[in-house]
Amino acid sequence: MVTLCEVGPRDGLQNLPRTFTVEEKITLITRLAAAGLSSIEAVSMVNPARVPQMAGAEEVLAGLPELPGVHLSALVLNLRGAERALATRIDGLRFAVVASDTFCRRNQGMSSEESVAEFARAAKAARSSERDIVAVIATAYGCPFEGEIAPARVARMVEAMIAAGASQVVLADTIGVAVPANIRCLHDHVAPVLGGRPWGVHLHNTRNTGYANLSTALELGTSVVDASIGGLGGCPFAPRATGNVATEDVNYLMQRSGVATGLDHDRLSDLVDWLDGLVPERITGQLGRAGWFGAEAAA
Amino acid sequence: MVTLCEVGPRDGLQNLPRTFTVEEKITLITRLAAAGLSSIEAVSMVNPARVPQMAGAEEVLAGLPELPGVHLSALVLNLRGAERALATRIDGLRFAVVASDTFCRRNQGMSSEESVAEFARAAKAARSSERDIVAVIATAYGCPFEGEIAPARVARMVEAMIAAGASQVVLADTIGVAVPANIRCLHDHVAPVLGGRPWGVHLHNTRNTGYANLSTALELGTSVVDASIGGLGGCPFAPRATGNVATEDVNYLMQRSGVATGLDHDRLSDLVDWLDGLVPERITGQLGRAGWFGAEAAA
Repeated sequence: MVTLCEVGPRDGLQNLPRTFTVEEKITLITRLAAAGLSSIEAVSMVNPARVPQMAGAEEVLAGLPELPGVHLSALVLNLRGAERALATRIDGLRFAVVASDTFCRRNQGMSSEESVAEFARAAKAARSSERDIVAVIATAYGCPFEGEIAPARVARMVEAMIAAGASQVVLADTIGVAVPANIRCLHDHVAPVLGGRPWGVHLHNTRNTGYANLSTALELGTSVVDASIGGLGGCPFAPRATGNVATEDVNYLMQRSGVATGLDHDRLSDLVDWLDGLVPERITGQLGRAGWFGAEAAA
Repeated sequence: MVTLCEVGPRDGLQNLPRTFTVEEKITLITRLAAAGLSSIEAVSMVNPARVPQMAGAEEVLAGLPELPGVHLSALVLNLRGAERALATRIDGLRFAVVASDTFCRRNQGMSSEESVAEFARAAKAARSSERDIVAVIATAYGCPFEGEIAPARVARMVEAMIAAGASQVVLADTIGVAVPANIRCLHDHVAPVLGGRPWGVHLHNTRNTGYANLSTALELGTSVVDASIGGLGGCPFAPRATGNVATEDVNYLMQRSGVATGLDHDRLSDLVDWLDGLVPERITGQLGRAGWFGAEAAA
């Protein structure tokens, strides 16, 4: 069973030139749920002075209707963010640590080691509130400032966070540099220290390797695949960052590979059309233009 | 050993809104060779009334300098095209047959079976001229008009063309619908009838699966990978066709995976810049914008 975790409302919106209103964010999340997404990273509990696109997280969550069967999570970078999230209706936390020290200091003002220690504090708070916490490891496949990241270093971080209570571990190619061999190599380092917890991938398609990496991760038995509707996304603190793998294209690849997703292609397409009207230059997903295989034949 | 076959001068240019001059085509091919491409599909011997972008094939070939170590090929669709090509300096032919009857009639005015028979005639002519002939099977993974194509049908065509003298077989996802499972499935059907001849893939990235398919083909031991500089390309007779996998991005994926390509990334990038000035809206390769991994770190 592979869970597609939709990160469009968070990663997708965080570096757009146009800041979505609270109302638009609520529309986006509600329509994602209606298209069949059962896991949605809905908000980010970061400083709105640093990332204005992410302002209004509490209002978004309060304004959302009941979404039965949908797991809503918040991205957090520190204990303060975790506490903000735990004061809301959120179902779980996704805590981002960063494998690269340099990137970690720029992104969240602490070292990698400090971010793992902060994860442990957040995990404790999550446990007290009976919410789950996912460990997301940014720049796990490479850093724009430090270059290659040693897989053994990532594995040590994973081990520490599993011990601290991570329910899952998501390995993130924040700047889209990985190739399938890297996915395989890091998997081989991390698998022995997962202690039976599921692992996943968060992939950016910056160098056209994102879907190849996804395909390899699926072969290796990934349980979680992050994707962003329309292929929006990118870290505001990574140079020349570009979007995540697109939910609608991931859905095509997975469904045509015989991996069930539970997603409704037509509803996803309608949602991409809506986003295309708002941020046309940022749509990197291709299914919207190309259509599902067979569409032309039927026309 | 994997040969990267550059199809930019043919597939890349054939559906552009802007027709390249003979001089521009010569520049393109010469610069591709200088970047390390040792196999180049340089021209297409088709009717210029149907595909005006491909006019001037003989002039292009006559105008090219000596290119030592570079294998130049011509795409042909019938015996007439083969004879045109064999009257030039060309090193080999790439003959396209089409797995779908409907597409074959629209693209080259004959049935699939007739195109295989025509291949045999062209192969005989090539043999007389001591040139090699590659069998390219278009719509091998799906047709915009007929939908799914039975892998057994493709395998029968391969068998016939191997018997008729094909030096290689290239399986083409003309409309970019394949997923890695399809690459695997067709490989499993075709491998037993190859008679030891190399096989390759020609992939379009229309639904963001092209690089995943490439990665799978490499795992399966493909010997030939078609790619187009900048990711230009698309069949003029396929609805909503888009570009091939991009040479510069394929080079990134392969080199970072430890597969030697012999290509010079900087020269490829310069060439992409040049193309970006001519057909900016058609560049789908991402390395030009993103840069090689480590570029930011060095900056």
